Amino acid sequence: MENKKGLVFSGARPTGRQHLGNLLGAIQNYVGLQQDYDCIYSIVDIHALTTVETTVDLKQNCLEMALDWLAAGINPDQSIMFVQSHVPQVMELHTILSMMVSLGKLTDLPTFKEKVRMHPNNVNYGLVGYPVLMSADILLYKANAVPVGIDQAPHLEFTREVVRTFNYRVGKQVLVEPQMKVTQFTKVMGLDGVNKMSKSLDNEIEIAADAETTRKRVMTMVTDTQRIRRTDPGNPDVCNVFSFHKMFSSQAEVDTIEQECRSAGIGCVDCKKKLAVNLNNSLEPLRSRRHEFESKPDQVWEILYDGADRARKIADQTMLEVREAVGLALYRQ
Amino acid sequence: MENKKGLVFSGARPTGRQHLGNLLGAIQNYVGLQQDYDCIYSIVDIHALTTVETTVDLKQNCLEMALDWLAAGINPDQSIMFVQSHVPQVMELHTILSMMVSLGKLTDLPTFKEKVRMHPNNVNYGLVGYPVLMSADILLYKANAVPVGIDQAPHLEFTREVVRTFNYRVGKQVLVEPQMKVTQFTKVMGLDGVNKMSKSLDNEIEIAADAETTRKRVMTMVTDTQRIRRTDPGNPDVCNVFSFHKMFSSQAEVDTIEQECRSAGIGCVDCKKKLAVNLNNSLEPLRSRRHEFESKPDQVWEILYDGADRARKIADQTMLEVREAVGLALYRQ
Repeated sequence: MENKKGLVFSGARPTGRQHLGNLLGAIQNYVGLQQDYDCIYSIVDIHALTTVETTVDLKQNCLEMALDWLAAGINPDQSIMFVQSHVPQVMELHTILSMMVSLGKLTDLPTFKEKVRMHPNNVNYGLVGYPVLMSADILLYKANAVPVGIDQAPHLEFTREVVRTFNYRVGKQVLVEPQMKVTQFTKVMGLDGVNKMSKSLDNEIEIAADAETTRKRVMTMVTDTQRIRRTDPGNPDVCNVFSFHKMFSSQAEVDTIEQECRSAGIGCVDCKKKLAVNLNNSLEPLRSRRHEFESKPDQVWEILYDGADRARKIADQTMLEVREAVGLALYRQ
Repeated sequence: MENKKGLVFSGARPTGRQHLGNLLGAIQNYVGLQQDYDCIYSIVDIHALTTVETTVDLKQNCLEMALDWLAAGINPDQSIMFVQSHVPQVMELHTILSMMVSLGKLTDLPTFKEKVRMHPNNVNYGLVGYPVLMSADILLYKANAVPVGIDQAPHLEFTREVVRTFNYRVGKQVLVEPQMKVTQFTKVMGLDGVNKMSKSLDNEIEIAADAETTRKRVMTMVTDTQRIRRTDPGNPDVCNVFSFHKMFSSQAEVDTIEQECRSAGIGCVDCKKKLAVNLNNSLEPLRSRRHEFESKPDQVWEILYDGADRARKIADQTMLEVREAVGLALYRQ
């Protein structure tokens, strides 16, 4: 990889087919970063094991996510995209780092407490180490920058502390402190207009859904709840459909709709029909790229394997330095 | 490896040059097991990282331990002996298993509480996972039997539980429940006659020390503390030197010494001189084998690398089955 502004790493759990929240909140950001950075994007299937009860869909979910990433414009010739478990070195680094991290610090992290609330019956040992595995992901590739939302800041600060502890312990600058690339992640609300778009709440629109499915989902969207009758004027400021128009319709149309909504000139049904058309038009190029990749899943796996091969090369080098620094006897040189 | 009664696995932390306590308590047992079992003996350097503050001697300690093992009769053509970190698959399995083990179960183990008492300022995350890493060691090779002292029984029971949990979760018999091979480990007291022989107490006799050093160490041994004057009769039943005679002197000599001690016919100094002679004679073959290996450290490393290669083959197969069972997307087949 030719060096641009530096190396960006980001990982995402394999949640399967991606929705508009993923696209606008994360994937488009991934795509954009390719301009200025060398990028490594990992589908973190090992992380998924910490909270998942069944893994029957794990493989397929990796593939679906990769399809959406490719369709959205992640360029595998330029960036590395791969499945985390295909570079097992991350588990080596995780194990070694785990011996330099205090247990108390991990159980004190707010995200751990949150996870315990969400999975009270599955507080497994690996769950505690989630931030250690995350750190290993970043540090294995000596990433300079990690795009994080402000809520993820404590995790990255933890990673930076791990680096300082490690380098201090071994008396050498081996690992690299990643910089926080604080990023505005567009928060996309779900069809209900109340909760963040999320698969588990069934309030999502998949980016790769067909046009008809998308249209039907859009038609179920909750609008301004104060507008009871067709003849009531609406308030676009509180209407989730209007937020979507702002993302997917032309400025001229947005202006018209705002005005007609406030004057009860357009009803919610028609407003949603327009949104469905614009959304489908906007997603069409992505979907057609996805169809192409979908028809050649083997090629997508090859892209992921190839990404893993390139990632392994970096990982092997880092692990050699880590083993040497830690004082482990090196395997045959 | 041709199948005998089954496969034995055991690991020992790289504590460097071994002493008589190690030899009689563990190594001779390892040597003996080779008769009936295929054996895998691992120098567990990753485990050492959980409590060690400095690792400057880690490499050398691995080599010294290997030298003593080889000198004592571990046969690398027959058994696999290797350095744990040379088969990094163990850290993969450790990471995956860590997600199936409850945190509470680990912190409840008496050995963890003991370790917290010993290292109150270094309760690191990896320390909690010590038994998980131990389990990964055993399970990676699908060992049928693990020689354990009775105090280690809870750890092996833990490993067996991990197997049941894993196999239940994946719905397949992938990992193998190891049997406990409860073993009488000879407890060797140190020179002080009060504490177990241990390097950290400086009360040990190294098996590879030269004859003169050994003689000097023997001469410092504490005998029957009730025998004040040379003319006092002694009590061999409470004398640590007499225990050593029973291990290293001929039965005829042991009988004579017992009788002469009780009748004050022999003094402690002479009694220890005899022990020194017999001990040195008894260790002579081991020491000369050690000298041979010592002069060719590269060859010893090759033995360890070769052991790692053979261990990796088994480990790779197990990890393939584990990944498949867990549902991870497999890397290029």
